[in-house]
Amino acid sequence: MALLVMKFGGTSVADIETIRNSALHVKREVDNGNHCAVVVSAMSGHTNQLVEWTREIAPLHDAREYDAVVSSGEQITAGLMALALQSMGVQARSWLGWQIPLETDDAHGAARIAGIDPAKIKPRMERGEVAVIAGFQGIGPDNRITTLGRGGSDTSAVALAAALRADRCDIYTDVDGIYTSDPRVVPKAHRLDRISYEEMLEMASLGAKVLQTRSVEMAMTQRVRLYVRSSFDAPDASGPNGENPGTLVCDEDEIVEQQVVSGIAYAKDEAKVTLVRVEDKPGIAARVFGPLADSGINVDMIVQNISEDGRTTDLTFTVQDSDLQKALDVLSAAKTDIVYEDIRGATDIVKVSVIGVGMRSHAGVAARMFNALAEKGINIQAISTSEIKISVLIDAAYAELAVRTLHTLFELDAN
Amino acid sequence: MALLVMKFGGTSVADIETIRNSALHVKREVDNGNHCAVVVSAMSGHTNQLVEWTREIAPLHDAREYDAVVSSGEQITAGLMALALQSMGVQARSWLGWQIPLETDDAHGAARIAGIDPAKIKPRMERGEVAVIAGFQGIGPDNRITTLGRGGSDTSAVALAAALRADRCDIYTDVDGIYTSDPRVVPKAHRLDRISYEEMLEMASLGAKVLQTRSVEMAMTQRVRLYVRSSFDAPDASGPNGENPGTLVCDEDEIVEQQVVSGIAYAKDEAKVTLVRVEDKPGIAARVFGPLADSGINVDMIVQNISEDGRTTDLTFTVQDSDLQKALDVLSAAKTDIVYEDIRGATDIVKVSVIGVGMRSHAGVAARMFNALAEKGINIQAISTSEIKISVLIDAAYAELAVRTLHTLFELDAN
Repeated sequence: MALLVMKFGGTSVADIETIRNSALHVKREVDNGNHCAVVVSAMSGHTNQLVEWTREIAPLHDAREYDAVVSSGEQITAGLMALALQSMGVQARSWLGWQIPLETDDAHGAARIAGIDPAKIKPRMERGEVAVIAGFQGIGPDNRITTLGRGGSDTSAVALAAALRADRCDIYTDVDGIYTSDPRVVPKAHRLDRISYEEMLEMASLGAKVLQTRSVEMAMTQRVRLYVRSSFDAPDASGPNGENPGTLVCDEDEIVEQQVVSGIAYAKDEAKVTLVRVEDKPGIAARVFGPLADSGINVDMIVQNISEDGRTTDLTFTVQDSDLQKALDVLSAAKTDIVYEDIRGATDIVKVSVIGVGMRSHAGVAARMFNALAEKGINIQAISTSEIKISVLIDAAYAELAVRTLHTLFELDAN
Repeated sequence: MALLVMKFGGTSVADIETIRNSALHVKREVDNGNHCAVVVSAMSGHTNQLVEWTREIAPLHDAREYDAVVSSGEQITAGLMALALQSMGVQARSWLGWQIPLETDDAHGAARIAGIDPAKIKPRMERGEVAVIAGFQGIGPDNRITTLGRGGSDTSAVALAAALRADRCDIYTDVDGIYTSDPRVVPKAHRLDRISYEEMLEMASLGAKVLQTRSVEMAMTQRVRLYVRSSFDAPDASGPNGENPGTLVCDEDEIVEQQVVSGIAYAKDEAKVTLVRVEDKPGIAARVFGPLADSGINVDMIVQNISEDGRTTDLTFTVQDSDLQKALDVLSAAKTDIVYEDIRGATDIVKVSVIGVGMRSHAGVAARMFNALAEKGINIQAISTSEIKISVLIDAAYAELAVRTLHTLFELDAN
């Protein structure tokens, strides 16, 4: 007997048939004697339609009303999931954010969870009733519906698992787990049985879009074990105690046989900005990056070339490609203050990252990585590192070659 | 300065464009210095889609979950209407049933309003903020969303107008008022400037589908003046104090020049049941109509022919055509108890009614009606009357002829 939170994403509740199939996964867990809370997203595509309506009717819309409209998607699937379970003989009841209550701050449209009171739902779960919870939504201090921002249903599920002290939070999605790399790019990529929170965080923020970064962070701090699996598996497929159909995201300590490198990620949504012949004098970095920060632009990698003439240097950094034009505008406006000859933007770059908690105890990963790329004639334009990650910026044309080369180098290829 | 409740039906909030147009009607009233509450239905067709989903997923569905799903339609339009108003510079805020609160009993799917607390919304309305209220929904004693049954948004609007002591409840729909008869059948039908509650009730229950019977009953008992008009009129068209663009449903006393007959209604959704050669003895009516009542079947008109042989008679009555098969089944099962030779059902009939509070003080309306029909060779199969209404059952083939004949007879034809 375990207490489980089961979360179903948009593609797993896309229509009546998929809702029914997802309900069979819940029924299996209930039949196995587990107490279950189910968190549902809106039907795939439904939230986009609702968001589009709010944009059409008022381009600068009031976030309170946006939340009232957009939260309706999860309300529908919560009711339908409860009905699907009931029709299978499973006791179930839907819960909206305000009914639980799942309290948030008043940052409508991107609210943060302030607290979840399990007093109403937990006793009912313990009597065998499945609590079906509308994800992505809560109630603010103004007694109005709030939403948690896109992808917020994962966060709802993890927060609920923490509040209920659940044994596990199962994230049902349209892929069967976390892979060593993107299988579309690396055919030899294989599913990981386990991955640590830290590694998952790097994977999520670097472009592996299975789990939202925010939900992984919360799982890590709240010590919620996440289990990622596919809702499109046969509902009678074994759980994590039998043949493993997914990936467990857990504490490092739970991973017995730790690889040096767990995965190779890549991100194509970065853009590069180069300031040519910037005056090379103290305080220049502040004059460049200050205005960018003030404009809400996150800068990722930074490279300052060695000054050739002793007076000027080239400064290169990366931003999200959606921020590129804004960054160019901000720096053009500040040209008289910064003093540079030219400014250039480019989007034909990719960031490739090698990730693994095992790096902490294994030296030489970076050297092996740089050598392997050099052997393939791939030029590294910038480097950034953390304790468990090494990222390089390269020409976008070499993205696939680089990812496959590193996947093989670090012995991740499936047999 | 008046306090107005404005209700917009499904076709008036069918998409972004119609919502915006409806919002312009609200803006006109606000600009005129009125304090407004707006009640909205779901987008036209949206509720049907939601109902269909609940049926697909569980044919015998839990009414609580049905309500959670189906109420989402009005939630969406309430938010969008608030956004539309805000974008026009009108202060507005959406309110769901549980936020007001609009309290109901726990009859999920067809709840009755128990009370509306105006304490939160009225002060805000008086400060110039439009309260946009999701129609059709409330909150039950179990802290769960309830719905009021189909057409419930009219009821929400009237109940709200009563709770707010509104000066008027404007019902915006896709027709511009109440007509003397169905204009599709009677090209000379004309719009009434005013109609009494009692007449409107007869019109509504007899097939003029502009207003829900229940909402008219509530308007009558709560003395809420209803004003029916089209949301598709230009928003700058005059209100009831200028050139009259709709129909006011009000107390008889407010109608100065009262016609003898106000309208001719017809209902095609009746079916006729005839029991042939029923034993003609005391108590037979109870043995026939008792089982029908027990099965929830409403019987409308009843005709018992004069017994020819002194022992048996033919008994004819009408039911809703959707109840016909059930009625036949119930009476077939009770055959040994009732004792009759044969049972026959027919749907090729229509009920035509002449309605007018003026009948109370004018004798001879029935005689003129029967004569006119006889002159056209139309056979009357059954008759029922009330103080302000005379209904006859005739062959469906004569429906249009009968309605037009009576419309002309009682001087309702437009010039």
